[in-house]
Amino acid sequence: MKFTSEDIETLEQIILARRDVRGNRFINSPVSQKDIDKILFAGVNAPSVGFSQPWEFVVIKDLDIRNKIKESFFEENEKAKQLFKEKRADAYTQLKLEGIIESALNIAVFYKPSKHPILGQTTMKEAGVYSVVCAIQNMWLMARALGVGLGWVSILDPNKIKTILKAPKDRKLIGYLCLGHVDKFYENPELERLQWEKRKNINDIVIKESY
Amino acid sequence: MKFTSEDIETLEQIILARRDVRGNRFINSPVSQKDIDKILFAGVNAPSVGFSQPWEFVVIKDLDIRNKIKESFFEENEKAKQLFKEKRADAYTQLKLEGIIESALNIAVFYKPSKHPILGQTTMKEAGVYSVVCAIQNMWLMARALGVGLGWVSILDPNKIKTILKAPKDRKLIGYLCLGHVDKFYENPELERLQWEKRKNINDIVIKESY
Repeated sequence: MKFTSEDIETLEQIILARRDVRGNRFINSPVSQKDIDKILFAGVNAPSVGFSQPWEFVVIKDLDIRNKIKESFFEENEKAKQLFKEKRADAYTQLKLEGIIESALNIAVFYKPSKHPILGQTTMKEAGVYSVVCAIQNMWLMARALGVGLGWVSILDPNKIKTILKAPKDRKLIGYLCLGHVDKFYENPELERLQWEKRKNINDIVIKESY
Repeated sequence: MKFTSEDIETLEQIILARRDVRGNRFINSPVSQKDIDKILFAGVNAPSVGFSQPWEFVVIKDLDIRNKIKESFFEENEKAKQLFKEKRADAYTQLKLEGIIESALNIAVFYKPSKHPILGQTTMKEAGVYSVVCAIQNMWLMARALGVGLGWVSILDPNKIKTILKAPKDRKLIGYLCLGHVDKFYENPELERLQWEKRKNINDIVIKESY
């Protein structure tokens, strides 16, 4: 299949328009099963080391479960606040950093290690986990194309999440995603807009031939 | 920005048409600087934890460097072969698993840890590395849209690659990518086509509410 210059432009637009969405932007509106299926389909068509497809997706709508997850966020966020000083501590406290309850659904994405050797994973064991991250990025882009906001919450204790979701011992939590319709997508990343971090210059991060 | 049903279809087609490309498909034809820039631009517009943008890209065309990298592949691949038994060992030996020399260029993608605390990375430290993987997946999709093949080589010793590329001590190699024009993209993943692994059924990997 050959893609046109319009197709290339479309992909670039989706990449540029993708945002990390938090609870301040989600609106109370369900996401259709058709959209959820399309997002999961994008995920399972990600690359995976040795075609191992080492991913599992727990789709969570139940509010009791989500309230328990949110408790872990509160605990970890309290610890996180201590790490930022003065002005930055004030700014941190004012940020809305998750949308666990405000979103329409959550998807916990796990890595399931294989019991047999996986082609391509024999030296760099992390390649399995990286495959799961590729799946999440595909889901994120597809969600954005569908007009569905997605936020990745990493201020969570993976072991507590595993216990809440009754995950088997060998599974590893990679990402905890909140999905839902939004009132708007920001034009720029929220942390760039708020000048929390500056955008890096491409010339500082692209290196020719070797360091 | 609102995307149309045609845009959604385009994204899905690019996701489905993306392949892991090895040396048996690359053709001897340079990739334009314009295409390289578009691929890198897709990368740096990936999500990153706390907008930390913790990525660095070493663009390698030099054949002496690539030959050294390939030595690490040979060493690690010899070890890998021992892990597969009987029929699978024969099949493994026949597979072409990289395109380090056959491709037009390589890109080594590194994670650069931050010296100050990163928002969102205080509990799950891996979130920084995951951001770099999201960048790689964006690059992979953009390469495919542009008609450029990309293969991720993970049968490499990261420490040897760091030494060859003179990478600072704190950097972590996440992905080693080979890029180039191809004679064709396979319709299905090569390892699926060769029945090395079976495609998983979505019902076996999507879980409702909890395990």
